[in-house]
Amino acid sequence: MVQCAETLVVRALPGLPRVRPGDDVGGLIVRALREAGWTLQACDVLVVTSKVISRAEGRFVDVSQVTPSARARELAEVTRKDPRMVELILQESTHVSRAAPEVLVVRHRLGFVSANAGIDLSNALPPEAQGAAQGAGPWALLLPQDPDAAARALRARFEAEFGVPLGVVLSDSHGRPFRLGSVGLAVGVAGLPALHDQVGTCDLDGRPLERTVSALADQVACAADLVAGQAAEGRPVVLVRGLTFDPSERTEAKAMVRPAEQDLYA
Amino acid sequence: MVQCAETLVVRALPGLPRVRPGDDVGGLIVRALREAGWTLQACDVLVVTSKVISRAEGRFVDVSQVTPSARARELAEVTRKDPRMVELILQESTHVSRAAPEVLVVRHRLGFVSANAGIDLSNALPPEAQGAAQGAGPWALLLPQDPDAAARALRARFEAEFGVPLGVVLSDSHGRPFRLGSVGLAVGVAGLPALHDQVGTCDLDGRPLERTVSALADQVACAADLVAGQAAEGRPVVLVRGLTFDPSERTEAKAMVRPAEQDLYA
Repeated sequence: MVQCAETLVVRALPGLPRVRPGDDVGGLIVRALREAGWTLQACDVLVVTSKVISRAEGRFVDVSQVTPSARARELAEVTRKDPRMVELILQESTHVSRAAPEVLVVRHRLGFVSANAGIDLSNALPPEAQGAAQGAGPWALLLPQDPDAAARALRARFEAEFGVPLGVVLSDSHGRPFRLGSVGLAVGVAGLPALHDQVGTCDLDGRPLERTVSALADQVACAADLVAGQAAEGRPVVLVRGLTFDPSERTEAKAMVRPAEQDLYA
Repeated sequence: MVQCAETLVVRALPGLPRVRPGDDVGGLIVRALREAGWTLQACDVLVVTSKVISRAEGRFVDVSQVTPSARARELAEVTRKDPRMVELILQESTHVSRAAPEVLVVRHRLGFVSANAGIDLSNALPPEAQGAAQGAGPWALLLPQDPDAAARALRARFEAEFGVPLGVVLSDSHGRPFRLGSVGLAVGVAGLPALHDQVGTCDLDGRPLERTVSALADQVACAADLVAGQAAEGRPVVLVRGLTFDPSERTEAKAMVRPAEQDLYA
């Protein structure tokens, strides 16, 4: 059962170093929390940008080394994108939702529908290429292999450290099909219920509430994005304090993905 | 220029009475702020659920009095919805995006695409019908006539009262085409830039940021929704403190609507 907070405090964690391939992200976050003098409380949620997990997993791709397939070259013509980027996008996805000039919307292998399969070209240089940043060719950073599993691992690490039930959200920033501007979105969730089901509650007139399920984890990712800023400011970890929930073992970000067979726009 | 907050505090305003047709919502909020001992600071954002504006504007519709058109009856068959509700939805919209069993997604006359034209059946009873809530027939509550104008009016009222530049967001809760669960969304905006354009900033490698525009007002609506709860808890006004922005005269929620001619799923 999720209870609405009276007051929510959303705060960026200072002092986290830039994550490199092979780094123990959980350990780095715990150390930054300790150095900042923060003690986690029950139902605190840590929102971690998925990019730092991608970096730790070494999900960098040197785009110049990618060989586009015939299908990728075809879609590159339609979308006016780099055929090598299109190839990468196709490798990360299971279905093309829409292709148009400057637009390639796909269903990601993780289930969600998004532009460019969530592949990022910002902050995508691996450490070895950073010295030559100005002259370096394009590098891409893929989403973590299994963001829900990564969220569960972080949650276990933090709970062991602080001895209280916690939530973890791995966030990313995505565009929307019918609206402009990107918003924070949960690609991995642990502990915190991804969806908040209000079945059975009534409105102020005593009538059953019509709209009953809210995307709790996505909204937490949005709140965190307001303080995480974009990459330039380097605040990849945000604490959200004030929610109350029964820590759930079974939650996952995939629960917020509308199943492909219910896709109205397939 | 928007600056990311280090810390954001999101807090529900207590003590607001239930709004009735003809009420001065701005005046009621100012009184509740005074009674709670809250003083607004520069760049505070007040997020107000659009429902209270709808109530003040008397946007209640007695569904039993609606006569469905032939088109509404046809779509009611497809969607298995009440033909009178479908008629109301059509009256509030300019285009049907998708119709399927249990689903009617339209482009609202205000521009955005959403299920059921944002028409609400919860908390939709007008005051005169509330005594008979259990036996009352279906009532619907339409969105405010002009939410951006209503947001501007509230902003002017609050700024006159507190003497500092403020933001106002009128929020609603909507589903998403490819994801489950509803999220907060800005249907009216004043003062706070709806979109936060990061053109010209660089990532940590010194490369221009690829994704540059975030939907600031929608994310603020999501953060507020985490404490506003749903109607049953009756927290229609939420203060978001900690953002920094140049108060904008020209902002509007419509700026976040992807124009119909760019609709990839038309």
